[in-house]
Amino acid sequence: MDESIYAKRAGALVRLLPSSAETGCDGAWILKPENRRYLSGFSAEDSQFTESSGSLLINGTNRLLITDSRYTLAAENEAAAFEVYTLKKNFVDDIPDFTKGFNLHNLGFEEDFVTWDLHRKTAETLARLSPPAALTPLNGMVENMREIKEDREVEALENAADMISDILDEVISALKPGVTEKDVAWQIKGLAKEAGAEGLSFPSIVASGPNSALPHAVPSNRKIRSREPIILDAGVRLNGYCSDITRTVFVGEPDDTFKTIYRTVRQAQLAVLEKIHPSVQSTRVDAVARDIIADAGFGAYFGHGLGHGVGLATHEGPRLGPRNAVLLQPGNVFTVEPGIYIPGKGGVRLEEMVVLEAEGPRILTKNDHFYDFS
Amino acid sequence: MDESIYAKRAGALVRLLPSSAETGCDGAWILKPENRRYLSGFSAEDSQFTESSGSLLINGTNRLLITDSRYTLAAENEAAAFEVYTLKKNFVDDIPDFTKGFNLHNLGFEEDFVTWDLHRKTAETLARLSPPAALTPLNGMVENMREIKEDREVEALENAADMISDILDEVISALKPGVTEKDVAWQIKGLAKEAGAEGLSFPSIVASGPNSALPHAVPSNRKIRSREPIILDAGVRLNGYCSDITRTVFVGEPDDTFKTIYRTVRQAQLAVLEKIHPSVQSTRVDAVARDIIADAGFGAYFGHGLGHGVGLATHEGPRLGPRNAVLLQPGNVFTVEPGIYIPGKGGVRLEEMVVLEAEGPRILTKNDHFYDFS
Repeated sequence: MDESIYAKRAGALVRLLPSSAETGCDGAWILKPENRRYLSGFSAEDSQFTESSGSLLINGTNRLLITDSRYTLAAENEAAAFEVYTLKKNFVDDIPDFTKGFNLHNLGFEEDFVTWDLHRKTAETLARLSPPAALTPLNGMVENMREIKEDREVEALENAADMISDILDEVISALKPGVTEKDVAWQIKGLAKEAGAEGLSFPSIVASGPNSALPHAVPSNRKIRSREPIILDAGVRLNGYCSDITRTVFVGEPDDTFKTIYRTVRQAQLAVLEKIHPSVQSTRVDAVARDIIADAGFGAYFGHGLGHGVGLATHEGPRLGPRNAVLLQPGNVFTVEPGIYIPGKGGVRLEEMVVLEAEGPRILTKNDHFYDFS
Repeated sequence: MDESIYAKRAGALVRLLPSSAETGCDGAWILKPENRRYLSGFSAEDSQFTESSGSLLINGTNRLLITDSRYTLAAENEAAAFEVYTLKKNFVDDIPDFTKGFNLHNLGFEEDFVTWDLHRKTAETLARLSPPAALTPLNGMVENMREIKEDREVEALENAADMISDILDEVISALKPGVTEKDVAWQIKGLAKEAGAEGLSFPSIVASGPNSALPHAVPSNRKIRSREPIILDAGVRLNGYCSDITRTVFVGEPDDTFKTIYRTVRQAQLAVLEKIHPSVQSTRVDAVARDIIADAGFGAYFGHGLGHGVGLATHEGPRLGPRNAVLLQPGNVFTVEPGIYIPGKGGVRLEEMVVLEAEGPRILTKNDHFYDFS
């Protein structure tokens, strides 16, 4: 991607800023790695939560990337639309230096990422500038921008989805009783590396038998057995963009209970895909799946939301669940992942990643490993 | 570890609390994963920064672990010294319910981890309790406790150090020109998995030739060549505890410049190990290495601190650098890692992990791959 993409995104943010909170902002301070990458192209990750690789300062006239000497070169290469400032001492102490000539008054900040202590120190230093400046919550303004994907972003997400779809194909065809969940998770990791992924977008879930009843199971040394459900939930990161897919697989034929469960989950998923169109409410989409699962008698066993947005982060907006209605819009990319989990026995989850287009949803996860237990 | 370890640690924290900030605290709210694990044994990681797997509430009479239904079972198994509360709605809304009978007034919180927004919402809800309660920064109280390792912790760290020392042995003996930095990093990951590590304690650094001049290089597709420096910096996590080691390796003989650089770095490291004893100032220890490197003419090329504590986190206290003097104490476990980095050419870093005992430092990283270029 070239410089102009980032200049445009930063410009769009600046135009939105006056609507932030009550007083409006004349600049934004961006620390969250995904927001930082979205607005500047700077791809560094934070090595530890407390060890930031840099932040952005954006207003109507300036685009500044503040980092330390470890990252200066990478920042200059990747964030051509930004001027790079290398810290002399540390972020807070250097504020008077790098804000010189900025004429800030009200700087938007990421209130759900900046720690209480960093906010306090930054606010104190900003207040001593001349003219003094203040911090105001951005209220998810950049995250909201990120929910509507540009065509180039959809393409990047589709590439990431293609990669994990192919990987699951290979994993599923090699699956046999006796291998452990950990073995399978390791195989996914190896295939992602071979395929050239930046990494996994989240630690893979490989959950077999009773473990599949835990929506967030961690791969164990349990050996896979025939006829039991095996949930494979994985994703890769490619050029910054994440993918996320789930298939539930059986080696051999499951019993009738799991056939019914599988059929119900798949039916719920297909009904949702029928229902989605621009401007539909997220809660109504969730209800389509929830009602089908409840009607089949499994209402108590679908304990999580229907889906979540995917982009530079694996989990982002829009969220599709029973609460917090939002209108789905063209350009949204999100998962549709109903599930039924019977404690102590096992579960089934099926997850597709889709982009919402004017005509309806288009599936990005092109892996056709589904059963027809009708 | 059994229940009593955690009950003891929580008890020690409660006794320290009245000294927190100016007003004193009568309880602590602990979210940071390492602090949470240290005090309770609960080992879950936070899947995303914004998605906490739980927090602790500790005071003179109560030890409560607050989590959601995904983690209830794990919490009950691992944190036997804690009562487990499963969230009904979410943390903030459930505060009145799970603090019932707690009689809190001033709750310590981790000001460098809790976000501005979570602090605001929590403080508002606490203020409406009867009697109302307030939040006060803990100022690193738990992190300070963690700096002095118990014998069982030193043992755990030694096991993690042994594992990565053996892994580097194997990696170094297999190293040959033509393999890429990424290949080597992948090999380290595979060996860690085979050896039974929980994972790497940080993404391995494999930096060859000019890349070795970047202290935080990311493994690339660059192929290793003979006679150039190759920095291998890696660690594993085992039973929660981290290790961290660096060796600089040459395939074939380096030129005289790099022989001199290597000799200087090693000499600085050995001099530091001679100098360390209980109650020595961290800045004085750092100066020992810095002076030797400066005297050899490389003063401008050692741009980072001498070392850092290692424990449940890879980077923790005590920090050994030119600023912020602290007295080193028996029970501290930290790295000694001088380095010299010549931009565009290459660098050498050597890192040992040591425990400070009454008699002096004991090296935990038992890998003897050092060169004698005298």
